[in-house]
Amino acid sequence: MSVLSGMRVVEGSAFVAVPLAGMTLAQMGAEVIRFDRIGGGLDAGRWPLAPNGQSLFWAGMNKGKKSIAVDMKSSEGRELITEIITAPGPDAGLFLTNLRVRGWMDYETLRRHREDLVMVTLTGDRHGRPQVDYTVNPALGVPHMTGPEDHADPVAHALPAWDLIAGNMCVSALLAAERHRLRGHGGQEVELALKDVAAATLGHLGMIADASLNAQDRGKAGNALYGAYGQDFLCADGRRVMVIGLTHRQWRGLIAGTGLSDAMAALEARLGVSLDLEGHRWRHRAAITEVLAPWFAARRVADFEADFNARGLTWSEFRTVREAMAQDPDLTTDNPMFAQVSHPGVGTFLTPRHPATFSAQATCHPGSAPVLGAHTEEILAEVLGLPGGSIGRLFDKGIVEGPAPHATQTAA
Amino acid sequence: MSVLSGMRVVEGSAFVAVPLAGMTLAQMGAEVIRFDRIGGGLDAGRWPLAPNGQSLFWAGMNKGKKSIAVDMKSSEGRELITEIITAPGPDAGLFLTNLRVRGWMDYETLRRHREDLVMVTLTGDRHGRPQVDYTVNPALGVPHMTGPEDHADPVAHALPAWDLIAGNMCVSALLAAERHRLRGHGGQEVELALKDVAAATLGHLGMIADASLNAQDRGKAGNALYGAYGQDFLCADGRRVMVIGLTHRQWRGLIAGTGLSDAMAALEARLGVSLDLEGHRWRHRAAITEVLAPWFAARRVADFEADFNARGLTWSEFRTVREAMAQDPDLTTDNPMFAQVSHPGVGTFLTPRHPATFSAQATCHPGSAPVLGAHTEEILAEVLGLPGGSIGRLFDKGIVEGPAPHATQTAA
Repeated sequence: MSVLSGMRVVEGSAFVAVPLAGMTLAQMGAEVIRFDRIGGGLDAGRWPLAPNGQSLFWAGMNKGKKSIAVDMKSSEGRELITEIITAPGPDAGLFLTNLRVRGWMDYETLRRHREDLVMVTLTGDRHGRPQVDYTVNPALGVPHMTGPEDHADPVAHALPAWDLIAGNMCVSALLAAERHRLRGHGGQEVELALKDVAAATLGHLGMIADASLNAQDRGKAGNALYGAYGQDFLCADGRRVMVIGLTHRQWRGLIAGTGLSDAMAALEARLGVSLDLEGHRWRHRAAITEVLAPWFAARRVADFEADFNARGLTWSEFRTVREAMAQDPDLTTDNPMFAQVSHPGVGTFLTPRHPATFSAQATCHPGSAPVLGAHTEEILAEVLGLPGGSIGRLFDKGIVEGPAPHATQTAA
Repeated sequence: MSVLSGMRVVEGSAFVAVPLAGMTLAQMGAEVIRFDRIGGGLDAGRWPLAPNGQSLFWAGMNKGKKSIAVDMKSSEGRELITEIITAPGPDAGLFLTNLRVRGWMDYETLRRHREDLVMVTLTGDRHGRPQVDYTVNPALGVPHMTGPEDHADPVAHALPAWDLIAGNMCVSALLAAERHRLRGHGGQEVELALKDVAAATLGHLGMIADASLNAQDRGKAGNALYGAYGQDFLCADGRRVMVIGLTHRQWRGLIAGTGLSDAMAALEARLGVSLDLEGHRWRHRAAITEVLAPWFAARRVADFEADFNARGLTWSEFRTVREAMAQDPDLTTDNPMFAQVSHPGVGTFLTPRHPATFSAQATCHPGSAPVLGAHTEEILAEVLGLPGGSIGRLFDKGIVEGPAPHATQTAA
């Protein structure tokens, strides 16, 4: 049994945020039903792809869910979806979506079928206009803070950070609203916009206040840690490390670990400041880096790795994903978060469950990603209680589809 | 009343993830008590700073919370914290932390004082070693995917994305464990590691599967949208826009909006592919950009802005935070998510509440950030029920502290 066992969530979605939200709930034990149009939704073929052309993105974002494929252009298909979303059960009636469907799939219509529905809707911006991570991020200024100091152009992040944050917020919003319902206060609609998620986060980090009170935009600082000390260094073996002097203890540890206390004291004397203060470390980071860089340039990682670890320094090495997978036990099944999972029709690969460990529950297996429509029949029978004859008729009329006949046979 | 009204959470924290988690719960209506050592925790002076030297970061991450300052080196101080964490109440006994305190503040010790405690602990990595966003990110490969294609060095993100994701996961982990407790299954400890949060997320996005099945590392692609089409363009007025052709509809809209259907058809003929397929748009993105770039270079944003919006295209403009604040109503109090808030001792600035709107509740005001120790007296009286004489004695002995006398007077 997992922490959310017994909860049923229905998801109508595409791309990152809402699929991630549903998958996160599934990894905590909820039964999550994702419905898609026949042939698959907008993200059915999203890159990266497996060698056989199937979407690795779709597999990653939908593992552990149940999939039903429905012709939503037909009124019968729309009725089926409505019934699945609003099916009875004290731990059901929970709906996550980022699809912009007016009419049959909006909150006011759906709640006529289930008064205590909890519906979480993610939109692009608060006006309902389309926005994606790739447009929100430039509009709010982060690319202007990112990248090498000498690179004039804005640099967008490769990680869809706003989508990932918004998806996790959809999870907590749904749990908060369901908690409220559990206490007898009824259901509700929760709306949030990707752009607002990003704007609020900038505010939380102090960036809006900084721009406002100090009348300045934060500039690029390369790979430096903002506001204290932290920098990347190239070592004698061509490897690049990141070392952190954010807290006083980290800073003192870094000086002790490199044995550069005399040189750093001389620098402090020259500058007339104490580098024990984080603001001074930030302002004088270039001078500090000048002291440290030759030390790293003269050493291989192997020369200081064990000592840095023994001292408890906060540091790491820059690696590609493949290098990390080859070198780091945390990216293997040594880490109980990961399992080698065979995803039908896609392949077998290292797959993570939810990163949290709940001490009162056995950990979930991540589960495999369903082939599109893999659970169509099961959902019609078990969630809607349709008899076999009715289900057969829905398949025959093309209102619903099961998995393509070849889909389950191409697994690695 | 807000969605989490009545819930009480205690937070022992520093920096981004856990303070964000507590603040997010506070913005949804929970009473959140953050305790710090006297003089402030590790993030008390975290940049950015206000003109008066106070931390804008601290203000952003702690607004809406209550603050108590306690001498945790004294056994009496540690007992007070223990009592606050484990104070009775059906909606209390919830503790969030990223402090690595063994002995008096670990789960096994605390639960002796309250059997049904729910404790969420964030660590650096699963081995308990120190890690921060700035070290986790390089170790897992994202900087190698980030930045201009011709820039050989890895580029770290400026946004502490992993911290922000982990913080939001702490919120949902706490709500999931509390939901379990509400159903009579008792409390528990939930542990997660920042590095595991990042590694799991890479897996969810398909990046680990891509590295594994395709034996390749995703390369840098500048500001391009990965896997389909999306690109930044410089316009005649020197402004830079991002335009998206991720879905078929977006792609067709972009061609129609620029009137380049003939040129794009000629390109398809020359390449011998249909650019209606997202994979072809990705593979041939440079050729597509060559067709589109002169169109944007010949136009000012004002020349196409209204038409792009009327067509519902997905696009945005690159701006700094200050430019966004000056130009975009979504970053003003026109957006009900924001209010101008006076933070005692820091200043008055645009402050966001939680980005979600819960239809069954009035929206929360974001609240101001407490001066360190602002609620020391209130918490001792109301949460622990201490009489005035005992509280006075704790202040006299220096076991607790209230706000510094000048702290509330420097507000803007």
